[in-house]
Amino acid sequence: MLLHFECMKTLYLQNHELTLRFDSSLSGVRSDEVLLKVQLAGICGTDLALLNGYANFNGVLGHECVAEVIETGAGVNGGLIGRRVVAEINQWCGVCDQCAREHYNHCLNRRVIGIRDHQGCFAEQIVVKANTLHIIPDSIDDRQAVFIEPLAAAFRIIEQLQLHDYRDVMLIGAGRLGQLIARVMVLQKKPLTVVVRHAQQRELLQDLPLNCIDESAVEAKIVDVTIDATGQQSGLELALHALRPQGICVMKSSYSSPVTVDLTRLVIDEVELFGSRCGPFSTAIKALEDGLIETESLIDATFKIDDYQAAFALAHQKGSMKVLIKPC
Amino acid sequence: MLLHFECMKTLYLQNHELTLRFDSSLSGVRSDEVLLKVQLAGICGTDLALLNGYANFNGVLGHECVAEVIETGAGVNGGLIGRRVVAEINQWCGVCDQCAREHYNHCLNRRVIGIRDHQGCFAEQIVVKANTLHIIPDSIDDRQAVFIEPLAAAFRIIEQLQLHDYRDVMLIGAGRLGQLIARVMVLQKKPLTVVVRHAQQRELLQDLPLNCIDESAVEAKIVDVTIDATGQQSGLELALHALRPQGICVMKSSYSSPVTVDLTRLVIDEVELFGSRCGPFSTAIKALEDGLIETESLIDATFKIDDYQAAFALAHQKGSMKVLIKPC
Repeated sequence: MLLHFECMKTLYLQNHELTLRFDSSLSGVRSDEVLLKVQLAGICGTDLALLNGYANFNGVLGHECVAEVIETGAGVNGGLIGRRVVAEINQWCGVCDQCAREHYNHCLNRRVIGIRDHQGCFAEQIVVKANTLHIIPDSIDDRQAVFIEPLAAAFRIIEQLQLHDYRDVMLIGAGRLGQLIARVMVLQKKPLTVVVRHAQQRELLQDLPLNCIDESAVEAKIVDVTIDATGQQSGLELALHALRPQGICVMKSSYSSPVTVDLTRLVIDEVELFGSRCGPFSTAIKALEDGLIETESLIDATFKIDDYQAAFALAHQKGSMKVLIKPC
Repeated sequence: MLLHFECMKTLYLQNHELTLRFDSSLSGVRSDEVLLKVQLAGICGTDLALLNGYANFNGVLGHECVAEVIETGAGVNGGLIGRRVVAEINQWCGVCDQCAREHYNHCLNRRVIGIRDHQGCFAEQIVVKANTLHIIPDSIDDRQAVFIEPLAAAFRIIEQLQLHDYRDVMLIGAGRLGQLIARVMVLQKKPLTVVVRHAQQRELLQDLPLNCIDESAVEAKIVDVTIDATGQQSGLELALHALRPQGICVMKSSYSSPVTVDLTRLVIDEVELFGSRCGPFSTAIKALEDGLIETESLIDATFKIDDYQAAFALAHQKGSMKVLIKPC
């Protein structure tokens, strides 16, 4: 087991505060692990929620990245060295009841990169399990690859809706994740309406076959599927309001505070409500490879890790999209 | 158009108060309607909720009954006269968007017997649309037939779950509707646990292949499907608590006050929550005909319509089951 660094830069979250910290605790890779050099990482809405106390996480932040394999554990194919990869953020155990059902993203013992019991990717290097890696085809550049994790989360909605019969969709929210959801949903070729808040959000959607409206234009009971990607209770309430009887409401947000809505209507109109979290990386990679999803316009800026304060200041601005961090 | 009565007895709900009222407003049948003589009717949990203000209904109460056709409209087959029938409680319009999709129970213009804009069946006679009738086979007696409407509501859960993959089920609540749900769910031959509150509820389930437990024995994240049939927020909270990741929670209650629960967990565990209301009458009739569902033990007593106060006093008692009313 080689040690590739004496000390590396990380962005460490502790007590709601993010600091640049030099970490020397990484102790090499175990048999089933690999060491990655992080090339590019993205700031996500969940990172901002984590800063606000979501999931009570303390540790190195970050879970969206593209990286290069620089060391492999004894049980891992050494041919991986030098390959560009992304890692699933759920690092599963492989032995629990959920893993036995191949529900790896719901592993009961999972550690989640930069979210739960696992170092994040706002760091020069990161150790992950080799069986959670996906190799990036050459046709996908780093600036696209960094979107694979959130794009997979957007495709998760399609997986969950696939057995359902629906005619049209309304997406509430067109922020970082909402933009990707919009790009995925238009592939379903069903009428799509997106509720936007900022002019910039509308501009980024202008080339897509969808209809943008303001919140005030949302009528009651007009659509079969609604997706709340606002992260706010008011967004969820609007999503329920717009649903036809027997409609489906998808909760696609990390809510950083408790969400309570009146559920009486769910019974009378037999409405369905479900949460949606992580999705299929391979589907996201294939979609980027096939040129189906445009991401470049969503990148606001790229910062060196030392300039993390400016990066997060920009990410916090209303209407801002993807802010990237280059750790090395 | 004949008028079969000058004046009939009804149980009329107004401002949360139920009174015996002699009604002479029924004006015969229209072309697509039939006049029914009500043989036997059942008091439902929804009737008690309506008395508490649910749905703001004022009018003749009652929606579970078995009846005999005594007059047919000009456009209806006269051969129906003398037949024993049950009527769907949702009297649909046949022309709206939901009816066009054959979602008749969600008709946008529906009148609902004894619940919304339609006279109920706690009355000597009632007029309904002929195309909402189901003829009762001779092998089903009146005391069974009066359970068809709530039994159909229980079978609705099976319809809604049919595309889902699940291993086991927990039913919270073993009251009037809960008892029928338990009888339907055991037909699915999946492990079933029922959370009971009263010794009598447990006794009525003792011959069925299921496991009864007390509320205090419900552990977190132990089952794939939960069904809340308590009509109370605490029951819904327990149902969400007991769900495994990616589990399904069915809301099978008429909640008479707003229900608010913390939905944050729905996202992290991708839990699904849906409401369930009216179901397939034909499935319920077939199940009774095939002897699959036992109902006799659920009948506490039968009262004449004049003794409605005693009937409702018994129905209000904790742990009481089905109380029947004989209008004629």
